[in-house]
Amino acid sequence: MTDLAAVKRALTAQRVETPSWAFGNSGTRFKVFTQPGVPRTPQEKIADAAVVHQYTGVAPTVALHIPWDKVDDYSALTAYAKSLGVGIGAINTNVFQDDDYKLGSVTNPDPAVRRKATDHLLEAIDIMDATGSRDLKLWFSDGINYPGQDDLTNRQDRLAAALQETYARLGDDQRILLEYKLFEPAFYATDIPDWGTSYAHCLELGPKATVCIDTGHHAPGTNIEFIVAFLLRQKKLGAFDFNSRFYADDDLMAGAADPFQLFRILYEIVRGGALDPAYGINFMLDQCHNIEAKIPAIIRSILNIQEATAKALLVDREALTKAQNDGDVLEANAVIMDAYNTDVRPLLAEVRTDLGLDPDPVGAYKRSGYQEKIIADRVGGEQAGWGA
Amino acid sequence: MTDLAAVKRALTAQRVETPSWAFGNSGTRFKVFTQPGVPRTPQEKIADAAVVHQYTGVAPTVALHIPWDKVDDYSALTAYAKSLGVGIGAINTNVFQDDDYKLGSVTNPDPAVRRKATDHLLEAIDIMDATGSRDLKLWFSDGINYPGQDDLTNRQDRLAAALQETYARLGDDQRILLEYKLFEPAFYATDIPDWGTSYAHCLELGPKATVCIDTGHHAPGTNIEFIVAFLLRQKKLGAFDFNSRFYADDDLMAGAADPFQLFRILYEIVRGGALDPAYGINFMLDQCHNIEAKIPAIIRSILNIQEATAKALLVDREALTKAQNDGDVLEANAVIMDAYNTDVRPLLAEVRTDLGLDPDPVGAYKRSGYQEKIIADRVGGEQAGWGA
Amino acid sequence: MTDLAAVKRALTAQRVETPSWAFGNSGTRFKVFTQPGVPRTPQEKIADAAVVHQYTGVAPTVALHIPWDKVDDYSALTAYAKSLGVGIGAINTNVFQDDDYKLGSVTNPDPAVRRKATDHLLEAIDIMDATGSRDLKLWFSDGINYPGQDDLTNRQDRLAAALQETYARLGDDQRILLEYKLFEPAFYATDIPDWGTSYAHCLELGPKATVCIDTGHHAPGTNIEFIVAFLLRQKKLGAFDFNSRFYADDDLMAGAADPFQLFRILYEIVRGGALDPAYGINFMLDQCHNIEAKIPAIIRSILNIQEATAKALLVDREALTKAQNDGDVLEANAVIMDAYNTDVRPLLAEVRTDLGLDPDPVGAYKRSGYQEKIIADRVGGEQAGWGA
Amino acid sequence: MTDLAAVKRALTAQRVETPSWAFGNSGTRFKVFTQPGVPRTPQEKIADAAVVHQYTGVAPTVALHIPWDKVDDYSALTAYAKSLGVGIGAINTNVFQDDDYKLGSVTNPDPAVRRKATDHLLEAIDIMDATGSRDLKLWFSDGINYPGQDDLTNRQDRLAAALQETYARLGDDQRILLEYKLFEPAFYATDIPDWGTSYAHCLELGPKATVCIDTGHHAPGTNIEFIVAFLLRQKKLGAFDFNSRFYADDDLMAGAADPFQLFRILYEIVRGGALDPAYGINFMLDQCHNIEAKIPAIIRSILNIQEATAKALLVDREALTKAQNDGDVLEANAVIMDAYNTDVRPLLAEVRTDLGLDPDPVGAYKRSGYQEKIIADRVGGEQAGWGA
Repeated sequence: MTDLAAVKRALTAQRVETPSWAFGNSGTRFKVFTQPGVPRTPQEKIADAAVVHQYTGVAPTVALHIPWDKVDDYSALTAYAKSLGVGIGAINTNVFQDDDYKLGSVTNPDPAVRRKATDHLLEAIDIMDATGSRDLKLWFSDGINYPGQDDLTNRQDRLAAALQETYARLGDDQRILLEYKLFEPAFYATDIPDWGTSYAHCLELGPKATVCIDTGHHAPGTNIEFIVAFLLRQKKLGAFDFNSRFYADDDLMAGAADPFQLFRILYEIVRGGALDPAYGINFMLDQCHNIEAKIPAIIRSILNIQEATAKALLVDREALTKAQNDGDVLEANAVIMDAYNTDVRPLLAEVRTDLGLDPDPVGAYKRSGYQEKIIADRVGGEQAGWGA
Repeated sequence: MTDLAAVKRALTAQRVETPSWAFGNSGTRFKVFTQPGVPRTPQEKIADAAVVHQYTGVAPTVALHIPWDKVDDYSALTAYAKSLGVGIGAINTNVFQDDDYKLGSVTNPDPAVRRKATDHLLEAIDIMDATGSRDLKLWFSDGINYPGQDDLTNRQDRLAAALQETYARLGDDQRILLEYKLFEPAFYATDIPDWGTSYAHCLELGPKATVCIDTGHHAPGTNIEFIVAFLLRQKKLGAFDFNSRFYADDDLMAGAADPFQLFRILYEIVRGGALDPAYGINFMLDQCHNIEAKIPAIIRSILNIQEATAKALLVDREALTKAQNDGDVLEANAVIMDAYNTDVRPLLAEVRTDLGLDPDPVGAYKRSGYQEKIIADRVGGEQAGWGA
Repeated sequence: MTDLAAVKRALTAQRVETPSWAFGNSGTRFKVFTQPGVPRTPQEKIADAAVVHQYTGVAPTVALHIPWDKVDDYSALTAYAKSLGVGIGAINTNVFQDDDYKLGSVTNPDPAVRRKATDHLLEAIDIMDATGSRDLKLWFSDGINYPGQDDLTNRQDRLAAALQETYARLGDDQRILLEYKLFEPAFYATDIPDWGTSYAHCLELGPKATVCIDTGHHAPGTNIEFIVAFLLRQKKLGAFDFNSRFYADDDLMAGAADPFQLFRILYEIVRGGALDPAYGINFMLDQCHNIEAKIPAIIRSILNIQEATAKALLVDREALTKAQNDGDVLEANAVIMDAYNTDVRPLLAEVRTDLGLDPDPVGAYKRSGYQEKIIADRVGGEQAGWGA
Repeated sequence: MTDLAAVKRALTAQRVETPSWAFGNSGTRFKVFTQPGVPRTPQEKIADAAVVHQYTGVAPTVALHIPWDKVDDYSALTAYAKSLGVGIGAINTNVFQDDDYKLGSVTNPDPAVRRKATDHLLEAIDIMDATGSRDLKLWFSDGINYPGQDDLTNRQDRLAAALQETYARLGDDQRILLEYKLFEPAFYATDIPDWGTSYAHCLELGPKATVCIDTGHHAPGTNIEFIVAFLLRQKKLGAFDFNSRFYADDDLMAGAADPFQLFRILYEIVRGGALDPAYGINFMLDQCHNIEAKIPAIIRSILNIQEATAKALLVDREALTKAQNDGDVLEANAVIMDAYNTDVRPLLAEVRTDLGLDPDPVGAYKRSGYQEKIIADRVGGEQAGWGA
């Protein structure tokens, strides 16, 4: 028997962090299609994030990307966010957009480039000190395009050295989220290509380093929920970058490509007791809304995660355990599918109503006039985007 | 017994077409790293292509990309190319970089956008008339990112209409090369995702429409040489876009990622009697040299194709047929591998020497001082690149 | 606005064909786990199929596999099936389990083997004449394991010859369903690896040859619903082999691995007006229940297809078309997802009740005592299975 | 400058272990094609392995598979092997072919099955004591086919318990080689799906547990040589199961599908100083010769590994390091490719001649009459094969 009140409490407590860069323009190597109303400053991105939180009620923090969100006064930025009802979340580093980084950042064969890159990581911790952020998210585009281009092992040594220096700089309540990615922009060997590599480095660093799973960064066929379950068992799962994909790192809205997979991932989170924010996992979005309107796309992604979570919470765990222990393959699968096939939208509408929110966040946003307002207001200046 | 003189004749007659855009800057969605000395004009691209031909002897044509290579006077451009010893090859259309094309070009739900896109295709034929080009290469980035975004069948109808109008405009000696691609930039459904779709459209268009195989545009595990053999059998293979990949459409140098695959592809070409330029296949490169020097990378790619071809020509066909007919699996495979394992570089050095070329094209290019010269000369102006 | 009565009519009229071999034992190359109660004869398989129809109401035909279902008197077998309330469906050929077929059947380099294989195909049409079957399903395991092992083009020529001879033997109301498969058991090149190859052969054969899509036979990332839409547009889609997979040709229960994909496939069927049995598509299951109980697994698969179909029928086509034509990416996707997120189980329960069936077919089957009965009865003899 | 004498010494010292089961019949789930002359007993398998060593000079050990190679007296078997000039290598366990193991072996929900499976692992160590084997190779087919079928975390706990008990039983000079595999026969979640999972368990077990890389057990696109380099850096690489594949776990001859990949793997071995048998890596074959003659296929696989090794040894390390440190992408790649493109067959012929062997092992085997002899002699009895 499912305890519906507990399900609603869990859904009310759930948190999703939005990424400042998803409000800016993005695209593929072929073209970035710009959209009217896109933010031009970190403040405008935070304003949009606040609107997302206003309509969903579960997205009270926004992650920053340095240097895209560089400002002179991070305390002021934090206060500004607070004034809009949101807080600053993870600080994301960027060591892939300077010309120096053509052959790598912290793994570059040139020690001067490595120094520069590591200094950027340390600088990000300074920013965390100012914003009060707990999480330093590290994604390295580092890798090589051709066999022989560089020595795989030497690059690991360089990576370990930079990570150690960064780890040593962390405050007591700060931590590293170490992301991995199979490929792109490196096309032969990426220096942290899979969870195993990230895990091994985190183990060597210590308890303040944990793995960040980006749901779009795996080889075809990879069972992501297995990785979730395994890292929970090892106590080394620190964060998600949610998005979805049919092919490579497509960065589509979370839940858009394979809602059943998202449900299975959330089921492992629920099963591992890791949904509660107190557990410490940072559930972030990391997406590119190349052709769709950005704010409603982010709202939709959050709804998709909420729906997957609600279904995961509805799994009849007792019946499931019984069927599993009985070796009843069909019944065990049926218990899971029964929850998945439930239409949880009415339940989530109730949760929202209880929170004083509109039960239909996308509709409420559309009706709010905010989109028209930012299109009218945000004229002139330079739109935010990758590299901008 | 292999007839070495015939092998050398075939290698001497082989032709590879270079792409003007590969001489310009390129990159990933994360960063375009610029390189010194990169061309700023179509003329400078052609000059670089001429240098590639000068050192390889097998690359006498260069493909253009419209509008990247737009000029006022194509006859003058053609004459300029001729003065450098090269000719204009295929004309490549570009219906993916205008803001209008966010939701597609010839398959866009908006008829006005479709009209604009189709007009661009027709304009490209005008340019072909001026340059004397035989081949119109059509690649459509068209597709959708989300299930439901547009109707798959309606998009096929629109595609067919645009293709028919374009086909009708072709001159007697002109033809369409219709490219396919699994994904990117479309991330859910691409309108021409595979060779079957391209083939079906080409069949309906008529004899002047043939399929172009880009070696990087397939799903993992796809047997490309099977497609080559099958399309040759159907007389519908018109062109290659050579490049290589470990993951998706990585656009690495041809032969860099899987030289054995390149050999198997070339073997099917040789076996089908399609290596001779008179057969009509346009063997083009289509690559992105994101981090490596461009001209020597293009030379290297051509050498890789030549080496794969030389090995394919060395296959003892008589022994192979005998082993195949005997059902001797190991022996048949051994015959193929015997050719593949041969070091054909001395043979190709001879072919080059016979042509009056330096036997070591990369070394000769490096020693020539051309790279230093273009770095010194090409200062100011805007470097060519995707979108530039 | 959805016309619920029409949706129910469509669901009532829907038909799924069960495969006789799915009732027998199956497994992987590592082990076949036998199950008690498994049929020992074609008659027992048909009896099980009749039970599936009895509880689902939409599975009135069962496909046979020759020689696994070889009997002396096919008219008697047909009459027996009829007495149980079902009919004989497609006849499946098997040219992969004789020692002769080690290097291929209709594409074997040895003409004697090709003759034998083609004769088997012709014999299957004789059986169709006796059973009144419309469909001859052809799947060829033919292919090669090593580059060079055999000539790819010669194999196509041999394939075409066998297909033509078989096609010529078809009666007026009979047709060929030509299946394709990326790999397994051939591990380098399969002779019909993709829909394009099957389509090209069907085109050359004529109107009585159409493509059969097995949902597990594609490369990773292949968009199957695109193929469905495209083949419908070309009027060459003849059948499905439904099953599901996470990796290769896993042959799991339809809808088990990616229910959203199954929905998208059914949506294209509905959109193309091809759900109605009168359209002529044979919707078959082709699965292996290696570790789960077979009859309830087949019932579950049918329910999964029904649920996907119900959701597809519930798509608000008018709203979808409007959003698509408006270029409203998010709204168009939302229309599709709204249908997908609906819990259609109550609707299907109504459909079943209207048909006089138990609304819960799996539960009804479990309660029926049939499973216990066949376990008790089917003792001795040799259980049916692949190769048995 | 390459030291050719050192290269030859390294090639002379190289060792490859053959698998007893590769001499027996194997196949796919569709069919096992039997071959004349296949061994019927462990002794006959060892005799074949001895012949492989006789002609190659680098394969002095043969791995056993329990229970396929179960005998009453392992000391006698070891002595028999010694009398033929070979030794017993790794002991491979088999916990996948009893009916009990339908839902798993050491991860089965049923404790009695887990007990049985673990006892089998312990028994294998008893056999190692008798044969003097150092290596216990553990491959678990354990996993689940359907979401929900069993609890992923519970299964890890059970796995860890069985591994610990087994580890505790190891003698001082014995060790565990822990294999991983993406999928098959489990089709949804495999309990040790990737190197990271194996690595994490090995870390927890202790220094006598190391990872075994089967080159066919990865997701598409996985960079295997990266894993090799990484595990060498972590000092946790214990063994290889060599074979090759175009698609899934095809188990083709090593080097047949992607000889360049095999070269890159061997390069990392050479670069890590791990080629020398004293380093402790067990270089094993694990293949299925479904359609080709078994003994020459195994010889060919060894030659392929030797050729890849010779090329790896020929890499000009000094030039490579210089180019890498200079950031010269093309030159660094060229250094690697220069070695790869070398025809090393003459060099290996010299190595063999120096060892008193025929320079052409496949030819020598064919001329030896051994194949004809075993075909004539091995009549009656039951041929060895999977499950036999």
